[in-house]
Amino acid sequence: MAFTEIEYDVADRVATLTLSRPERLNAFTHTMRVELIEAFDRADADDGVRAVVVTGAGRAFCAGADLGGGGGTFGHRQRGETVEGVPRDGGGTVALRIARSLKPVVGAINGPAVGVGVTMTLPMDVRLAAESARFGFVFARRGIVTEAASSWFLPRIVGIAQAMEWAATGRVFPAAEALAGRLVSRVLPDAELLPAAYALAREIAGNTSAVSVAAIRRLMWSGLSASSPWEAHAADSRLMAELGGGADSVEGVTAFLEKRAADFPMKVSEDLPPGVPSWPDNPYGV
Amino acid sequence: MAFTEIEYDVADRVATLTLSRPERLNAFTHTMRVELIEAFDRADADDGVRAVVVTGAGRAFCAGADLGGGGGTFGHRQRGETVEGVPRDGGGTVALRIARSLKPVVGAINGPAVGVGVTMTLPMDVRLAAESARFGFVFARRGIVTEAASSWFLPRIVGIAQAMEWAATGRVFPAAEALAGRLVSRVLPDAELLPAAYALAREIAGNTSAVSVAAIRRLMWSGLSASSPWEAHAADSRLMAELGGGADSVEGVTAFLEKRAADFPMKVSEDLPPGVPSWPDNPYGV
Amino acid sequence: MAFTEIEYDVADRVATLTLSRPERLNAFTHTMRVELIEAFDRADADDGVRAVVVTGAGRAFCAGADLGGGGGTFGHRQRGETVEGVPRDGGGTVALRIARSLKPVVGAINGPAVGVGVTMTLPMDVRLAAESARFGFVFARRGIVTEAASSWFLPRIVGIAQAMEWAATGRVFPAAEALAGRLVSRVLPDAELLPAAYALAREIAGNTSAVSVAAIRRLMWSGLSASSPWEAHAADSRLMAELGGGADSVEGVTAFLEKRAADFPMKVSEDLPPGVPSWPDNPYGV
Repeated sequence: MAFTEIEYDVADRVATLTLSRPERLNAFTHTMRVELIEAFDRADADDGVRAVVVTGAGRAFCAGADLGGGGGTFGHRQRGETVEGVPRDGGGTVALRIARSLKPVVGAINGPAVGVGVTMTLPMDVRLAAESARFGFVFARRGIVTEAASSWFLPRIVGIAQAMEWAATGRVFPAAEALAGRLVSRVLPDAELLPAAYALAREIAGNTSAVSVAAIRRLMWSGLSASSPWEAHAADSRLMAELGGGADSVEGVTAFLEKRAADFPMKVSEDLPPGVPSWPDNPYGV
Repeated sequence: MAFTEIEYDVADRVATLTLSRPERLNAFTHTMRVELIEAFDRADADDGVRAVVVTGAGRAFCAGADLGGGGGTFGHRQRGETVEGVPRDGGGTVALRIARSLKPVVGAINGPAVGVGVTMTLPMDVRLAAESARFGFVFARRGIVTEAASSWFLPRIVGIAQAMEWAATGRVFPAAEALAGRLVSRVLPDAELLPAAYALAREIAGNTSAVSVAAIRRLMWSGLSASSPWEAHAADSRLMAELGGGADSVEGVTAFLEKRAADFPMKVSEDLPPGVPSWPDNPYGV
Repeated sequence: MAFTEIEYDVADRVATLTLSRPERLNAFTHTMRVELIEAFDRADADDGVRAVVVTGAGRAFCAGADLGGGGGTFGHRQRGETVEGVPRDGGGTVALRIARSLKPVVGAINGPAVGVGVTMTLPMDVRLAAESARFGFVFARRGIVTEAASSWFLPRIVGIAQAMEWAATGRVFPAAEALAGRLVSRVLPDAELLPAAYALAREIAGNTSAVSVAAIRRLMWSGLSASSPWEAHAADSRLMAELGGGADSVEGVTAFLEKRAADFPMKVSEDLPPGVPSWPDNPYGV
């Protein structure tokens, strides 16, 4: 697949996904949706990719759904996939794909992130914002609802009080409010945003086992879904047994004891143990 | 029903519920419990109400259960409703009613909020506190337990460490500690408390679809209960389909494109789509 | 059992558990694991213990698993207990034992807390850190996964974004970063750490019903696991009925009305009501 509305680049073991319709403030379309999912499939399959950075081309991150269809925009949802006979939410298909990524994902929010432009960032692991970023869960101002499974993600990230204040008002708010409300981890001068995102990605790539990080990512997001710590204990008991005697563990401990950098031999494409939670694509037929 | 221990007023599309036993610091009684539930029923049924503000008359918000019954206060719980043969917790009946409100709820905590006086605020969307407010989860000092389903709400709002510190000590603490611990969103000079609560309520009422806000409120609180993001995705796929082609969505998008204020035609009393999570009153026979 | 790798002391109604292999920075072993579980059993059974403080001897809290076994350290996990045929995670057995403690637990983190040295603190109620403390979820640097059910605890304590940043980088970080990320409640000068931990323990012991605190601790941690607030309501309805007419409640309310300190007669060892959530040891055969 050749991408037309995003760019996909790999350098220094980091894949960069750039939303790229700058003349439309990177507004979200069906094509962008399909391309984002494909790009995460590609990153997961490539052992040369240790982390993913998502950002926007030009002055916006993503202005939300493309409203070029006018008042009927949100009514055109007949896309073949259905949930109990109704169309499937497109933003949610991207969000759930990001949630089950095997590589950690850093959102580098370089400008407006509104509607699906912000909800798509919620399943990313870390959100960094430029000073010029602004945010809006504007759905109630458009007569629709918070989508992209954000009713699950948002209150777990920022707390239900902050989630409801932003969702019920539909307010557009600046980066400082996003930081105070814990929607983003850090706010940076615009010129320092991508360097900070890459520094974090390299900190992961340069120090850790790719298989460990993939397993931990699935374990942690599953843990946030798990109904009790005993479920988590069952999962990590199994994974500690599967990975504890493995080549990466031997190398990791040996390197630590020898006070040298580790050179982990295992690959995500081949060596993920069966105990890694599957975090399925579609458990409810969704 | 004519209320005797609360006041109920509607102005500017905001209902104000005032706990009103100022001579008893608005201590909670069986009558107050019944009236609060009735008031939320009334607000939900009235399309002229877009948001609810809850506050206290006089110098307290609510000093907790009325202890006029003396040492045996918490033993008098034979009220006909039972859970596995035992009486139902009264504070919980209020908390769960607030949790399933169709209108957003702002707590304007104007003074002491202790015991059920604070736990009843946990299912409200946003809590604002006056500088003179103080708080106490004093249950362990009275030989009982945290009630009003606060063992579900509190650790999700403030985190389990803060929840346990407050609940295990039973400490009474000032507004500043409540803010630092994220129990309240803001602390305001006393005279600015109600104006701030009304400003937030009006920000909701003036900009958003009532049906969207009702659907989002149920979706978000259900999302906090949902066992996985796929449950949320199923729910919002359905709601996006039901509301995406609706009159409020057409008006919301059109108004945005025309850079004018929206005038949403749909009504909560008539137009809630079937996909809105029911957040039932009594799923466990409770 | 005479302890060899921990110390267990009771004074002023507070049990202190001191990890005590200072020459190995209190590195975690199988023996330490067994002794910690036994110590929590002992504290739970002793009505003279109202709270537990956990700290480390010497300059570390716990440097993590003892790596004296070299590269194969994490491969030696054949301990008889299995989960679906694989060995059980040792750190998790301690974490889950702490989670179901009947006495509140304060972690007094006096130095490095790395690997299982930090994950074992997550089921404690409150974590206080000395300025010299440092932390690391270093598992991905050792080729293994976050263990001790930390995929359940950590994102609920610090949020998924902070959890993933620490777990994916494996970074070792100072107390100030732990405080900013809400892993610890307070950072104190080293000399003030234990006094602060004991002050908190005494605030609990001096003011509250032991039975209430035990019931609340189980209720609150169960509440964090509960799938909805109605489950919590069912549990606290039952407990309010069981305890509301009890001797501690009568004393608590009477003492409050008489403006004197309460002298609660009930004992955890004998008077825990049947409605206290059991928070079972091993619900999945784990």
